[in-house]
Amino acid sequence: MDGRESVASTSLTLHLALVEAALQLVPREIQSDPQIKKYAERRMKRPTEVLLDRAFHHMAMQKLARKRFRLPVEKMGRPDIIHNTLLQILETPLNWEDQLRVFIHTQDDYVISIDPRIRLPKNYTRFIGLIEQLFAKKQVPERGDALMKIGKGTVQSLITRIRPSQVLGFSVLGQPTLMRTAAKDAGKITDPLVFIGGFPRGHFSSETRRALNSTLKVDRASLDAWVVAGRFVYDFEWVIGVAQRRVKTKNEQP
Amino acid sequence: MDGRESVASTSLTLHLALVEAALQLVPREIQSDPQIKKYAERRMKRPTEVLLDRAFHHMAMQKLARKRFRLPVEKMGRPDIIHNTLLQILETPLNWEDQLRVFIHTQDDYVISIDPRIRLPKNYTRFIGLIEQLFAKKQVPERGDALMKIGKGTVQSLITRIRPSQVLGFSVLGQPTLMRTAAKDAGKITDPLVFIGGFPRGHFSSETRRALNSTLKVDRASLDAWVVAGRFVYDFEWVIGVAQRRVKTKNEQP
Repeated sequence: MDGRESVASTSLTLHLALVEAALQLVPREIQSDPQIKKYAERRMKRPTEVLLDRAFHHMAMQKLARKRFRLPVEKMGRPDIIHNTLLQILETPLNWEDQLRVFIHTQDDYVISIDPRIRLPKNYTRFIGLIEQLFAKKQVPERGDALMKIGKGTVQSLITRIRPSQVLGFSVLGQPTLMRTAAKDAGKITDPLVFIGGFPRGHFSSETRRALNSTLKVDRASLDAWVVAGRFVYDFEWVIGVAQRRVKTKNEQP
Repeated sequence: MDGRESVASTSLTLHLALVEAALQLVPREIQSDPQIKKYAERRMKRPTEVLLDRAFHHMAMQKLARKRFRLPVEKMGRPDIIHNTLLQILETPLNWEDQLRVFIHTQDDYVISIDPRIRLPKNYTRFIGLIEQLFAKKQVPERGDALMKIGKGTVQSLITRIRPSQVLGFSVLGQPTLMRTAAKDAGKITDPLVFIGGFPRGHFSSETRRALNSTLKVDRASLDAWVVAGRFVYDFEWVIGVAQRRVKTKNEQP
């Protein structure tokens, strides 16, 4: 008993997807780049098996941009965004109450589903290793119940699968709204699905925009994905009364 | 103009300190441990210059625990906690409005002051390098205006310096309270100071407990430092009207 067991009385579930996430293997075009080869070697992997990461592959990525491969290079190669966001939302009362479902849609159109019971590695290097294993084996752990699964899928395929009554997205290009108002509205609909951009700069693609029922701007400036996700999960907890129920529980008091 | 400039009309400032933070150089007792030596060598540093990190030094730390050096080993060596927490609170509207001051008090009684204008490295490896530089040079950058400064200091010295009218701490051993209520109360006092434990398990030391005016429990389970910090900053923004002011600002609308 560590207090994480559920005290739920409602079954309302928030579906949260990080979309167009900057989480991808090194693209074919730069697999033979010296910076990439050296990085892969040091990690005892093949260049085809490692995640693109701007922190280590900046020079190779500049080459990718210059060569005009029609890749959105400025949006790519930031697995830390996904790691930080997951850390901020998976170890929360909402998830412990089993009222959160998290998905990652990547820029290469993969969809990762995450089991709420996962205990994510807190260390970045371990997280990278885990995601690389996921790309290689299609699920982790490789045998038994998957805690993460990956398969090809678009933003639209995610919607077909979840069948939300509404899809909300956060963007500085959206309608000015207080996040708490957005959470309140989301609490009133069945199976709300929220899209948060999993990339460092730029905006939702036209495909993503077409999938949204509403686009909301919650601050004048662009907020990091992990800030938006953490705050929305918290507001949603409040709207459906999770915080109130859990903090009033007396069975752990002396 | 990226929307981060202030629209403030109030000068209320939240002081937030991560206390007893698991951020320390490798202790003398294990500097000659093979795991530590190998790690330092790979990073081209001396064992005296590297941060203790459970993700890489687990075996050496077990030795530290066994040898009964009277160190709180289970609370030590987690720089990721500090990195994640800072990422969650420094790039927020409250900080952009210059109404947040962040401090880190470490388990070895150092106090780190952070300039609100800092742009923290998002990458973990870079963050580690920056903190190691801070320990070595006492400020970063080494010349010019410091974005981070470090000096010896206790929890009590932090209080003497900030002179808060009240010190709140979050702990599962505290009084059950809704976090929003705590934020509302903090918004009513002058220079509130909030303590959040910067360690992976265990509770505040007796020295820290003596410094607290109130200890609050906001969930049945223990929450990660970055979740507590992110949520409290957000609630505080709401209480003092930051979110409301910033999202209503029309000068960026078409």
